Amino acid sequence: MIEAIQNGRGIDKIFLYKNITGENISVIRQLAREHNIPLQMVPSEKLNSFTKANHQGVIAIAALVQYTDLQQVIDYTVGEGKSPLLVMLDGVTDVRNIGAIARSAVCCGAQALIIPDKGVGALNEETMKSSAGALEQIYISRVKSLAQAVDTLHLNGIKVYTAEMDAATKVYNMNFEEPCCIIMGNEEKGIQHFLSKAADGHFSIPITGDFDSFNVSVAAGIILYEAMKKRITGKTEEQ
Amino acid sequence: MIEAIQNGRGIDKIFLYKNITGENISVIRQLAREHNIPLQMVPSEKLNSFTKANHQGVIAIAALVQYTDLQQVIDYTVGEGKSPLLVMLDGVTDVRNIGAIARSAVCCGAQALIIPDKGVGALNEETMKSSAGALEQIYISRVKSLAQAVDTLHLNGIKVYTAEMDAATKVYNMNFEEPCCIIMGNEEKGIQHFLSKAADGHFSIPITGDFDSFNVSVAAGIILYEAMKKRITGKTEEQ
Repeated sequence: MIEAIQNGRGIDKIFLYKNITGENISVIRQLAREHNIPLQMVPSEKLNSFTKANHQGVIAIAALVQYTDLQQVIDYTVGEGKSPLLVMLDGVTDVRNIGAIARSAVCCGAQALIIPDKGVGALNEETMKSSAGALEQIYISRVKSLAQAVDTLHLNGIKVYTAEMDAATKVYNMNFEEPCCIIMGNEEKGIQHFLSKAADGHFSIPITGDFDSFNVSVAAGIILYEAMKKRITGKTEEQ
Repeated sequence: MIEAIQNGRGIDKIFLYKNITGENISVIRQLAREHNIPLQMVPSEKLNSFTKANHQGVIAIAALVQYTDLQQVIDYTVGEGKSPLLVMLDGVTDVRNIGAIARSAVCCGAQALIIPDKGVGALNEETMKSSAGALEQIYISRVKSLAQAVDTLHLNGIKVYTAEMDAATKVYNMNFEEPCCIIMGNEEKGIQHFLSKAADGHFSIPITGDFDSFNVSVAAGIILYEAMKKRITGKTEEQ
């Protein structure tokens, strides 16, 4: 398991028996920290529920997707001569929404999804199906702290924008042709305050009908479409 | 039941015992035809599975939504001084997609969804939930024939456009500010040939990434957003 953690990043979560000790366990804890793998202490009943095999107090859940370090994603993207277009999910919980967002991201030429290690829907088989396979065609960065991820983006010259319903700037007036990351909030609660504060700008999708919001995956699709269009046509509309 | 059919249009489907006869039955058949209510002949076991009450060989399933005649929808819309913006679903089967499309339609100021009486996902509780209630805020026209519906639209001066992946015209170059109806196809098969042929034009959403299509509800959201934007800004972009 230590090798699996070191080589790939293909592990979704680690369960440890709550009273476990030992040298290997310290190494696993250390590696989990380094690779942003969630680690949970559980009673033996929980571990036994996963498998009848002798698990020695440690069970790692293999990930369906391969995670890539955020700095590496940026380096690869810039190295390929592309202008970064990234999507950060601040707590989108519905796996079908995540799947549809991944699909739109790939369609529109975005390079990566950035997700937190907690509070976001699982990248499970249903998510994979909803993405129509797109989750395998985009970098996925799992980060321990979205705030730190914003710092990393800023250090790389990437602007960060939040989609917020009451923002005055309209989505079609944003400079999405520049390197940028778009943050989509939770279906109910929207964007967390600290992320909104750390962002370089906010925008909204206009709504003319008598309704307050789009489905989050539709909203993400509209925003990514606008970004793609700007990158195709090079036009930013004026208000 | 005859009164229920005559007064509202709040009936989703009628099941008739396959050997039933009688004067009332002729009236029910006639009314079902007039109001585009699907009618199915079934064995008594099927009817008994719905209810333990004495059903006398006829069971009507109440609709969660109120259906409105297409010509009435157009008359109401024009009467309110609005330029018709309608959405026709040609066999979208996933109820969550239908719900999300209804939500986008209301957000973008579209007045109605036009659905066929067969081959489209049910407007059930899950659809209602996915629409976040939007299905109650938009006219829904259920029609026996989508081809006839296109004729009705044409007679009222409403242009009909299909979203098709290989169409040369880009969605952002369409004149959506004019009275129009947008046809969305089935998730797998796309638009039926006869509808594509009857349409006034075809358009596609550009895709720059290495992927063939958006989720159908995301695609509908992007198209409706473009129509709304054109109606706000009055601009049609040039290629």
